[in-house]
Amino acid sequence: MSPTPEVPANSPFTLHNIPFGVISTSSNTTPRCASAIGDHAIDLGILFQKAEPDIMLGKPAPYQDFEQQTLNAFAGLPSGLRSNVRRFILDSLLNNTVPFEAFLPLDTVRMHMPMQISGYSDFFCSLEHCQNCSPMTGGNIPKNFYYSPSVYNGRASSVVVSPDPIRRPKGVMYDTGGKEGNPVYGASLKMDFELEMGFFVSKPVPWGQSLDIEKARDHIFGFVVLNDWSSRDLQAYEMTPLGPFHSKGFATSISPWIVTLEALEPFACEPKHNHDSTTFEHLRWHDRAKGTFDIRLTAKLIRNGITYDLVESNLRYMYWTPYQQIVHHAAGGCGLKTGDLLGTGTISGEKQGELGCLYEATRDGNSKLQFDDGSELGYLEDGDEIILEAWCGDGEGGRATIGFGHSRGKLLPSI
Amino acid sequence: MSPTPEVPANSPFTLHNIPFGVISTSSNTTPRCASAIGDHAIDLGILFQKAEPDIMLGKPAPYQDFEQQTLNAFAGLPSGLRSNVRRFILDSLLNNTVPFEAFLPLDTVRMHMPMQISGYSDFFCSLEHCQNCSPMTGGNIPKNFYYSPSVYNGRASSVVVSPDPIRRPKGVMYDTGGKEGNPVYGASLKMDFELEMGFFVSKPVPWGQSLDIEKARDHIFGFVVLNDWSSRDLQAYEMTPLGPFHSKGFATSISPWIVTLEALEPFACEPKHNHDSTTFEHLRWHDRAKGTFDIRLTAKLIRNGITYDLVESNLRYMYWTPYQQIVHHAAGGCGLKTGDLLGTGTISGEKQGELGCLYEATRDGNSKLQFDDGSELGYLEDGDEIILEAWCGDGEGGRATIGFGHSRGKLLPSI
Repeated sequence: MSPTPEVPANSPFTLHNIPFGVISTSSNTTPRCASAIGDHAIDLGILFQKAEPDIMLGKPAPYQDFEQQTLNAFAGLPSGLRSNVRRFILDSLLNNTVPFEAFLPLDTVRMHMPMQISGYSDFFCSLEHCQNCSPMTGGNIPKNFYYSPSVYNGRASSVVVSPDPIRRPKGVMYDTGGKEGNPVYGASLKMDFELEMGFFVSKPVPWGQSLDIEKARDHIFGFVVLNDWSSRDLQAYEMTPLGPFHSKGFATSISPWIVTLEALEPFACEPKHNHDSTTFEHLRWHDRAKGTFDIRLTAKLIRNGITYDLVESNLRYMYWTPYQQIVHHAAGGCGLKTGDLLGTGTISGEKQGELGCLYEATRDGNSKLQFDDGSELGYLEDGDEIILEAWCGDGEGGRATIGFGHSRGKLLPSI
Repeated sequence: MSPTPEVPANSPFTLHNIPFGVISTSSNTTPRCASAIGDHAIDLGILFQKAEPDIMLGKPAPYQDFEQQTLNAFAGLPSGLRSNVRRFILDSLLNNTVPFEAFLPLDTVRMHMPMQISGYSDFFCSLEHCQNCSPMTGGNIPKNFYYSPSVYNGRASSVVVSPDPIRRPKGVMYDTGGKEGNPVYGASLKMDFELEMGFFVSKPVPWGQSLDIEKARDHIFGFVVLNDWSSRDLQAYEMTPLGPFHSKGFATSISPWIVTLEALEPFACEPKHNHDSTTFEHLRWHDRAKGTFDIRLTAKLIRNGITYDLVESNLRYMYWTPYQQIVHHAAGGCGLKTGDLLGTGTISGEKQGELGCLYEATRDGNSKLQFDDGSELGYLEDGDEIILEAWCGDGEGGRATIGFGHSRGKLLPSI
């Protein structure tokens, strides 16, 4: 047993968090499940293997689930059992009963993809983002935006975990970079990021069945920060009629630590947009005051060693909430599996500094961002690094603070 | 050892075929890999376990691969080794050296999903289909259709194997069933099928890499018949701007036996459309005369016990070929995994009887099909069953014949 390490003031991984991830170390390169506290990972296989049988908390024993190379087995457990497990981790930290060897300094662990992702879908649910993207989607806000969360299937094979670098894609585009012109094949010239969150499915929804919104909570394991890397010239070429494919499919980055729905519930809040009066009953949340979450999001750019602030936004700005998204997704009967990833879509606000991607912030590159040091930014250049971050609470007056850590990724040149 | 059963004249599973599938039986309910000859499945675990070590044909031993519950391990082997395995099965049949207990009458086996599908993408590559669908996609043929194979990500979680029934989905649509109107939520009223083929990825393409068309052959395991069940009212609602989601995601049916690329190569032929002069070099096939395959496709409807012929089409009608499709798919760097499924898109010809879905054949239900018995057909009704079938060769003059068997599925009412 070991005294629980102190949590540094700026750590996202406070006692209020208890996130879940998958780690390996140089001395044990097999990926395995972990939590985090302050600057340390907690090897959950070790913690639960040393736990007394009477706190094994159910069958199958969590320590076996935590010796898996992904969190899918754990995420698939009933929410009550997952909650007990999280409580046991917290109690072990509070009681200083975590075995010494379970603590691993975060700067010595390698983070792995936390879940085996069978399906990845991405939404288009920020009204401000939709407004600003209308030149790309037909000139105005599609009518269907207001009646159900818009969504497309993404590419699960190219979801990567921070800080994996990503590569500038090749593809077919028009030589204008827009929706008209002569088709050419080559490396994208309009590389963008998108500031999103993602959430993982816990309890599956069987094929052919839908999901009652009152039960949506049981089907959400937790959230990550998500960068939906985008190529705007490939997108302009391919968007009509089938939607995004190559323009999004080359890479999606997520932060490595999954913050559970339970940890986020103290930060439940009212969504910015109130459209209950026009919302279908199956998409209406029973308690508007807790319909979404107050999660502050930022995007930064590192170019030539200098960090530039790009965006400040908030999950509560979304027109459609995560609960509404998962219910709409399931409504058609496609089925949801444990480990499916749902992207919220770009999260933009009304102000210039709240626009969640460069397409919006620069008007498709036509109005470059100007920085205090005299530099300017249109689209991304090779070597640029994007860092997304998310926080809940402010810690002031003893209030809880939890964070997600980073989703960061560097843009490598095309090959 | 046992004499090889005679192959009935009308069997798709001739000695020229040697398809691969996954079966179980009432006496052994564990799914396992099989081939088929005439009216019999061949349990490949048994065949290869009894084979002499010197014909084990590589490591890992194929019999271990064939004891898996999917064909992914086998499909991931190098194409030369897969070819040797197929040759060994054929020789065993020709030499009457298949163990008696490996033969299982097809009417006693249950067919399972042959591959674990990590990603499913569906193309839109028939010029005739694209023309006929233009009311749904914006009124004319999108310019990008002519320059690269159009494609979207489908839903891997809802790919099912024939003869699994499918269920009429619910969703949001306009009360007109078209692209305008008042949004309503309910069961789709415009249920359609789409006559397609699908092909499975063998050798993976790593994330971030593209695929040379000269090497495309090594990455295709084999083909199935595929029904891209579609809901036209959900599709009209959701198509702009993100493309198909609920309208396709509720179910996709495939035939259970995978016919290998090698078995299809004797039926290689010239595509109907010649657009080499405007095709990007990375999509140009070296030998136009063998650029695609002569595969005859049919669709039938069973309603109230009566079978109606709906469509006769051919894979060679496609504007973009499977080789071009997989190369385009990989070009963006999304990665392809063993077991990924690529749908060719609806395969239509020029004539009324060659239109591969009811949207086309009935002009969105406005011009119902009239049958000789006086009945007519708009969209599908609950209880309707669609049977897709595919054949190569005609068997005349001693020429080879191979077939795919059926993809069949019954439409169950919405719940």
